[in-house]
Amino acid sequence: MAEAPDDIQALIDLMARLPGLGPRSGRRAVLHLLKKRGLLMRPLGQTMLAVAESARDCLTCGNIGTSDTCPICASEKRATGEICVVEDVADLWAMERTGVFRGRYHVLGGTLSALDAVGPEDLRIPLLEHRIGDEGITEVILALGATVDGQTTAHYISDRLSGHEGLTITSLAQGVPVGGELDYLDDGTIGAALRARRAL
Amino acid sequence: MAEAPDDIQALIDLMARLPGLGPRSGRRAVLHLLKKRGLLMRPLGQTMLAVAESARDCLTCGNIGTSDTCPICASEKRATGEICVVEDVADLWAMERTGVFRGRYHVLGGTLSALDAVGPEDLRIPLLEHRIGDEGITEVILALGATVDGQTTAHYISDRLSGHEGLTITSLAQGVPVGGELDYLDDGTIGAALRARRAL
Repeated sequence: MAEAPDDIQALIDLMARLPGLGPRSGRRAVLHLLKKRGLLMRPLGQTMLAVAESARDCLTCGNIGTSDTCPICASEKRATGEICVVEDVADLWAMERTGVFRGRYHVLGGTLSALDAVGPEDLRIPLLEHRIGDEGITEVILALGATVDGQTTAHYISDRLSGHEGLTITSLAQGVPVGGELDYLDDGTIGAALRARRAL
Repeated sequence: MAEAPDDIQALIDLMARLPGLGPRSGRRAVLHLLKKRGLLMRPLGQTMLAVAESARDCLTCGNIGTSDTCPICASEKRATGEICVVEDVADLWAMERTGVFRGRYHVLGGTLSALDAVGPEDLRIPLLEHRIGDEGITEVILALGATVDGQTTAHYISDRLSGHEGLTITSLAQGVPVGGELDYLDDGTIGAALRARRAL
């Protein structure tokens, strides 16, 4: 006999597939849910089904919303002529939390990777190129991770878009993070911050 | 504007209440679910609702099943006259995985705790006392954690049941865990293992 009833075991197996959870923490989460069936388990199941039904990828930028055009692409206020290129929806949310950027986004859905056989066609890069003409874009900000794959992707996009006249291509500044202590920073970051030093 | 749509934010907030997850890992889990809406999010939501509807606490032992009497309490084969007292359903599952114990269980639902104001009436201890007469129990195995609260609870139950004639009260052996290296064990465990040494 299995230790847990079949449907509870099925629930544990599904929970264990979430990032950051495994069989053990999945079981722990399910036991917690079983203790709070009315207050947590039912609302969580209902919300999950509702979101699974209503969520849509924005056909323009790849953001997640509840219609084929996300609120940012639908808002005329955000038509500033700037597009911020991010890897993932998580990065878009992180940018939005800062409240600094007022333009629109383009979610690549990953980075170029020879190892994982991810090419430009897999990454909505052709769609980005179309948007530049369609939306009268004047600046593309490459907000990609400071990883090898992220920087490879940034260079590829920069090359590919270099033919567009009047288009500025920028990337996020590299330097000392806010609250960062030099002692704890890696050599690469300190070097980049030094090369990009500013006059006070 | 919030960075995520309202219902997705609600889902993140609910996920963040699971043990081992927080706002950040909850968001990561939801983004993973959003990428696998059909393959993971929908089945997870459906299973969660199904379990929330079907799960029942066994009225006898406190195990979780799909009816008022769990499969273990319903099985005549498990009427061995032994009751294994555990703190939680997770512990019951852990005991069942070993396949060593063939009797029935009693889930306390916690441990006695003066700090958290948990008394005997909160812990199904009176119900345990009734079962001893009702089910003709000859041995109560206290499989509680080797923590202060666990051992306090074990002593309390042992005292309270001491009046029952012909009832043996035992507890799990303390000693060196399987695969344990002496070098890495704490003094308490080594001391307990030495005091409980066996002839080969």
